[in-house]
Amino acid sequence: MEHIPTQQDIIAAHERISPYVPRSPIFISEAINRAMGFKAFFHMECLMPEVGSFKLRGAANAILSLSDEERSRGIVTQSTGNHALAVAYMAAQQKIQATIVMAAGASEAKKRRVRAHGGRILECSSAGFEARTQMLREEKERTGAIEIHPFDHYRVIAGQATVAKQLMEDVPNIDAMIAPIGGGGLVAGIALWAKYHSPRTKVIAAEPAAVDDASRSLQMGSIQQNPSSAKTVADGLVTPLGSRPFGIIKENVPDIVCVTEEEILSAMRIIWECLRVTVEPSGAVAYAALLKKREQYAGQNIGVILSGGNVDLDHIPFLQQ
Amino acid sequence: MEHIPTQQDIIAAHERISPYVPRSPIFISEAINRAMGFKAFFHMECLMPEVGSFKLRGAANAILSLSDEERSRGIVTQSTGNHALAVAYMAAQQKIQATIVMAAGASEAKKRRVRAHGGRILECSSAGFEARTQMLREEKERTGAIEIHPFDHYRVIAGQATVAKQLMEDVPNIDAMIAPIGGGGLVAGIALWAKYHSPRTKVIAAEPAAVDDASRSLQMGSIQQNPSSAKTVADGLVTPLGSRPFGIIKENVPDIVCVTEEEILSAMRIIWECLRVTVEPSGAVAYAALLKKREQYAGQNIGVILSGGNVDLDHIPFLQQ
Repeated sequence: MEHIPTQQDIIAAHERISPYVPRSPIFISEAINRAMGFKAFFHMECLMPEVGSFKLRGAANAILSLSDEERSRGIVTQSTGNHALAVAYMAAQQKIQATIVMAAGASEAKKRRVRAHGGRILECSSAGFEARTQMLREEKERTGAIEIHPFDHYRVIAGQATVAKQLMEDVPNIDAMIAPIGGGGLVAGIALWAKYHSPRTKVIAAEPAAVDDASRSLQMGSIQQNPSSAKTVADGLVTPLGSRPFGIIKENVPDIVCVTEEEILSAMRIIWECLRVTVEPSGAVAYAALLKKREQYAGQNIGVILSGGNVDLDHIPFLQQ
Repeated sequence: MEHIPTQQDIIAAHERISPYVPRSPIFISEAINRAMGFKAFFHMECLMPEVGSFKLRGAANAILSLSDEERSRGIVTQSTGNHALAVAYMAAQQKIQATIVMAAGASEAKKRRVRAHGGRILECSSAGFEARTQMLREEKERTGAIEIHPFDHYRVIAGQATVAKQLMEDVPNIDAMIAPIGGGGLVAGIALWAKYHSPRTKVIAAEPAAVDDASRSLQMGSIQQNPSSAKTVADGLVTPLGSRPFGIIKENVPDIVCVTEEEILSAMRIIWECLRVTVEPSGAVAYAALLKKREQYAGQNIGVILSGGNVDLDHIPFLQQ
């Protein structure tokens, strides 16, 4: 599929993935709403069974769209995080061989989870996205495997769009949806569905200030990079913006809110305490942005995408300050 | 209500509380089931909105059953844990004055949560259940308030029984249900529903070995105490067994599984990692018992009650070993 997903593409994606992707629960905390003045509907992608993130949606849509010939060639992707887990899991469900290029420095917990789902890991000892991309390219050429890109892929974007479709089905009258931005697949998908289905609903991207490439890209009108030294506790969001997501985002997302490391950790802790789920730092960024802009959203119904819950229990950041 | 709840009492309780108590999600982890050989259905009482435990069921049933005259007198209870929160929350929903006798040494987090729901706290500086019971008695005499006992109360037991009713509606063919035992209200309620609705379903109580009073009580046929020095990480289960629950349990629960502190912490950590929820130590005791007896339950459908999720984030026990 080499076109921006249409409304029908997203509806088809939702039908395609629904045997594998349950509807995520929507959590409401009266205590939070009373204290903050908005009405937050937390979309609990962090509770996605087995894989713990929204990434299953895009991976499932891309993998389930493969032809028999493509399936027989196997799939390959590069990801050090939740996409790796989603691809490994979904490929195993479909009995397709999956190879994941991961940074050699990725946590053992993450590697263990990928292997538990039957994923084959290629470790890339050079740091950085570019080195892993090169390794992936070589693997593709060598084996003919099909690449499932984590975000720069229209079928993946159509899959992520089902977050917004489900949320707007479950909660009518959403005034705004806030989601974290890394490569941009999730925000692009959400923005598309809002545009097709409810143009009055605002879509807001949330980003760590420490890796504010999406924010700068939107201002400049072209994709900007982060310095290679850039670091954030929200490690899932340290990825360059994809050109396909960016094309959608620059037309449809007016605002990117940048949050500090402290704001991310504070939001994460509130979610653990009030919603009782182990959201990961990247998964708490959207709520951090809402807290930062709460006066602007007083009285409104806000969909907050808690995107992932794969925290490393040996390194819980807000306990180490 | 001074009789053991009938099947009709439990059905009525479920109808009564349902406007206030949503159905708890049931979680399944393929990864856990594959590794362990049983099929676990985790009943996520720890995700109960606002209050984070099954205690809302019993508190709601008792409070909603009060007459107008009783409501006007206010309610009083003693609890240092989840029952306090449930009573404060439910009383606020019903605009009834609630007074909670709590140990002065209870965590600030717990007191803050009770106050946030509008509960009035009476701090008892003497340690131990008996001292708090005495303080509660004086408060009742002084004010005429109605006591909502955390477990030794048939309407509370009927409320807790709705855990089993919901689980067996949502998951047919449950072979066994495992729940933690402290005062005994939850296990008694579950045992009653199983007896009425599905006598073939086994009910197993799970208890920390460090406070094994329920296990000894069952062996002796009469209520036994824990030494006052007894301590466990599962602090929610350090309560004497109630005579009403014990009367039900000794007739209907064949087995109590005792688990070590290490087994509790290990089970808790697995739940955080695989289910991505902040179950509290007491809430992980049932799963610890299932893990201990897993060979016995190979191939069976097991309902595991994760009873609460109110962990103190400043003191996460498995991170402090």
